[in-house]
Amino acid sequence: MKGAHVLVNTAVQLGVDVCFANPGTTEMPLVEAMDAIEGIRPVLGVFEGVCTGAADGFGRMAGRPAMVLLHLGPGLANGIANLHNARRARTPMFVVVGEHATWHRGYDPLLAMDIEALAGTFSGWQRTTARSGDIVRDVTEAVSLAGQGQVSTLILPYDLQLEEPPEGRADACSPACAPVDAGTIERAAARLKKAKLPVLVLGGKALQREGLLTAARIRAASGCDLLAETFPARMERGEGLPDVPRIQYLPEMAMDQLSRYDLLVFAGAVRPVSFFGYPNVPAQLVDEGSETLMLTEGGRDAGEVLEALAGELGAPSSAPEDTLARPARMDLPSGPLSGDKICVVLAALQPEGCIVVEEAITNSLLYHPLTAGSRPFTLLTLTGGSLGQGPPCAAGAAIACPDRQVISFQADGAALYTLQALWTQARERLNVITLICSNRSYDILRLELTRLGVFQPGPAATRLSDLSGVDWVRAGEGMGVPSVSVSTAEALARELSRALGEKGPRLIEMVL
Amino acid sequence: MKGAHVLVNTAVQLGVDVCFANPGTTEMPLVEAMDAIEGIRPVLGVFEGVCTGAADGFGRMAGRPAMVLLHLGPGLANGIANLHNARRARTPMFVVVGEHATWHRGYDPLLAMDIEALAGTFSGWQRTTARSGDIVRDVTEAVSLAGQGQVSTLILPYDLQLEEPPEGRADACSPACAPVDAGTIERAAARLKKAKLPVLVLGGKALQREGLLTAARIRAASGCDLLAETFPARMERGEGLPDVPRIQYLPEMAMDQLSRYDLLVFAGAVRPVSFFGYPNVPAQLVDEGSETLMLTEGGRDAGEVLEALAGELGAPSSAPEDTLARPARMDLPSGPLSGDKICVVLAALQPEGCIVVEEAITNSLLYHPLTAGSRPFTLLTLTGGSLGQGPPCAAGAAIACPDRQVISFQADGAALYTLQALWTQARERLNVITLICSNRSYDILRLELTRLGVFQPGPAATRLSDLSGVDWVRAGEGMGVPSVSVSTAEALARELSRALGEKGPRLIEMVL
Repeated sequence: MKGAHVLVNTAVQLGVDVCFANPGTTEMPLVEAMDAIEGIRPVLGVFEGVCTGAADGFGRMAGRPAMVLLHLGPGLANGIANLHNARRARTPMFVVVGEHATWHRGYDPLLAMDIEALAGTFSGWQRTTARSGDIVRDVTEAVSLAGQGQVSTLILPYDLQLEEPPEGRADACSPACAPVDAGTIERAAARLKKAKLPVLVLGGKALQREGLLTAARIRAASGCDLLAETFPARMERGEGLPDVPRIQYLPEMAMDQLSRYDLLVFAGAVRPVSFFGYPNVPAQLVDEGSETLMLTEGGRDAGEVLEALAGELGAPSSAPEDTLARPARMDLPSGPLSGDKICVVLAALQPEGCIVVEEAITNSLLYHPLTAGSRPFTLLTLTGGSLGQGPPCAAGAAIACPDRQVISFQADGAALYTLQALWTQARERLNVITLICSNRSYDILRLELTRLGVFQPGPAATRLSDLSGVDWVRAGEGMGVPSVSVSTAEALARELSRALGEKGPRLIEMVL
Repeated sequence: MKGAHVLVNTAVQLGVDVCFANPGTTEMPLVEAMDAIEGIRPVLGVFEGVCTGAADGFGRMAGRPAMVLLHLGPGLANGIANLHNARRARTPMFVVVGEHATWHRGYDPLLAMDIEALAGTFSGWQRTTARSGDIVRDVTEAVSLAGQGQVSTLILPYDLQLEEPPEGRADACSPACAPVDAGTIERAAARLKKAKLPVLVLGGKALQREGLLTAARIRAASGCDLLAETFPARMERGEGLPDVPRIQYLPEMAMDQLSRYDLLVFAGAVRPVSFFGYPNVPAQLVDEGSETLMLTEGGRDAGEVLEALAGELGAPSSAPEDTLARPARMDLPSGPLSGDKICVVLAALQPEGCIVVEEAITNSLLYHPLTAGSRPFTLLTLTGGSLGQGPPCAAGAAIACPDRQVISFQADGAALYTLQALWTQARERLNVITLICSNRSYDILRLELTRLGVFQPGPAATRLSDLSGVDWVRAGEGMGVPSVSVSTAEALARELSRALGEKGPRLIEMVL
């Protein structure tokens, strides 16, 4: 069995069943291996940021790594922005990068780059396989360690893919989470009881259904508030779950939101810092005078920690009904579209069990507050701040969950970084509805300019934030996705309802 | 004057007059500075690979660096593929990357990445400015050293952009090229006279008009053949110039082409190696038995070296007329399009003085041979093998040379990596005609599969090389570029002629 076949075979044995790929010459043996060995569905992205973003969406929803296959340094470089988002989301992912043949690299062929330096910027685990006999071991380590919630990057030279190594095997390593620390839990329970106004800040796994319901039990027992990290990788939300607001994006608002608490207990979330460092705004958003307790440092499982804390507090076995969100259906708005109206229409119409990938930036401010009582859904957000995460992430989520409706709630500027994801949505006939907020500008930059005292942007600032000229209906159709444009709330409700009744991808340009 | 103003002011003083930008919050002071200080034309790219590819095209044509402004690590990462091409092209370029405030970085905000590691993969010069007082010195070094033919990357923290440093100045450093080495020239002349069948291999500056005409004089004096490197950054071609074939892309063909020579003299070109390392194909394409002489090692100027060599050989003061290409106008073909017919139509119709950016991959095999007697033009090619170079490079070339027609001769698969460049072409109303070879597949990969013995690709290989589903007319119009589709040679000739008579960008999808 050739090295390439060994890689694919080992990955399949470890449960890898999807590969988001944009291969080149140095990955052709691996492509051939996906035909020789059954078990992996190949999904083409026509730009590498689509592959990595899709694997991020897949990993968040499936809870296990997809494989990503990229071509040498430039191919990997094109995928880094969304690998950064995946790293911040703690998404399991198995990235394979082809490399020049070991005997060829030293001649500095045109495509040669320092692939290891690139991989070092986002990988939790990385290795360049040195001998074909190591492939089984390296793939096993890579895939199992990815399962911990990180990106594993394996760089595999072309000649090793073609060699026939001796047969080998390796045991999957699945390092256990650090056990719950009883002392920490006791201390947290004691502090929660004593604090005047405590808050439990949730992130990671604590934002899944189980974690949220446990958090609601803790709230019932201790009177604490609940908050979620600003950009959750995956959060369950809607009726029957506790309404958990997110920490605000703007540092001034976040500080105001957090300053009322005398105790902040973190489970699955890290201590919040300002997104950017502004003059006269502190980096740390939590008051120095407030007490903080970190429950999941050292890789502890957020679900287990919350369960132990609920037990320690003698919390009720289930959260009281009246502390969970009741169904709330909003009236549909009318008239010319605005960001707020879009949020209302979406919150009102989104179907039960849908997955909403939210990268709408300045137009989604109201979306989270409005969805407390929506039909239960899963929210995926922009975890690393690297734009162009939405469209590919939606594609990957749809592949992980083919029976669920995916809604890609998307800013136009951000969508332009990875609009090629629409092609993959069309090719794979994915149930993704893309809602493009077309305000034809990087509005967030205009907001940032006001911080510099620029309220009337000059020609350069105007030109560098003006996105007019994109026709999203044609752009969507160019990528093979049926597309329409709307400019009123009524039209949006009508077109969204229609799209929800159909299969396959759709795009709705929402002209603001 | 704020640090950001100091940067822009210093760059303007050094002759920088264009900035290809995709800025974010940490670059807003620099955007504001481009309004406060006149002299830099800001050009927005809606994806960073467009900015870096455009700066590459600009630098190749203008011979001086454009500025590129990118947002933190993810923004830089998105630009790396075309920065790699620029590095291989030895293009002067001044890249500025914003960084988190110095006091903020340590808190690991969401967008934090190892920017220096990323920059190290393509930069000839790089630095993170440590104090605002260093900005003048750092910009001066960066811009002047970029002029040597490399990418300079300056990483500038946000707080330093806002500080007001004391006034400072720095002298531009312009390290002279190493002087021509008389001994090397004498040896080369002697060897050229003695060799049975020598060849002069040209690259870099040697492929500009002056260098080519000097090479023709050397050929007249010594009887050597002339060859060009496989992927020239910039090459002049057409009637009145010597017809210089390029070294073939496929290693077997290149070895065959080179093996007939007993002496290979390189000026501005490096010793050719195989693009990929295939089993049983050597990395080095030149026979071990052949003698090689490198004239421009150590950064010597190819033009000066050729001039000295011509003198040493007692070459005629100008190349004999009959050794230069005569005008050759091809008859226009008819019927369904093929790659070869496209090459004929383009070679026949391309106007004098046009710039052809060629990234047509498998469909341009005949283009170079066919254009020996075309109207004189400039050819820019894919120097680093990193796909998606063509559309942005064409935009940058058009900005450098607003009075020249740019023709972007482009493969569909490669165009998909950076189709956002069409938006910049539309926004800036650039005279770029994009000719898309729509064969709806990564044909080069199907060719590579045959090397692995796969003549009937299986479903995975087929799926991963099949690009059907893109509607290029809609995709082009979606980005704001008037677009048409043709499928016969007659229609291509008609639409290309029409487009040549108009201003602003056009796209012609050529269905194969």
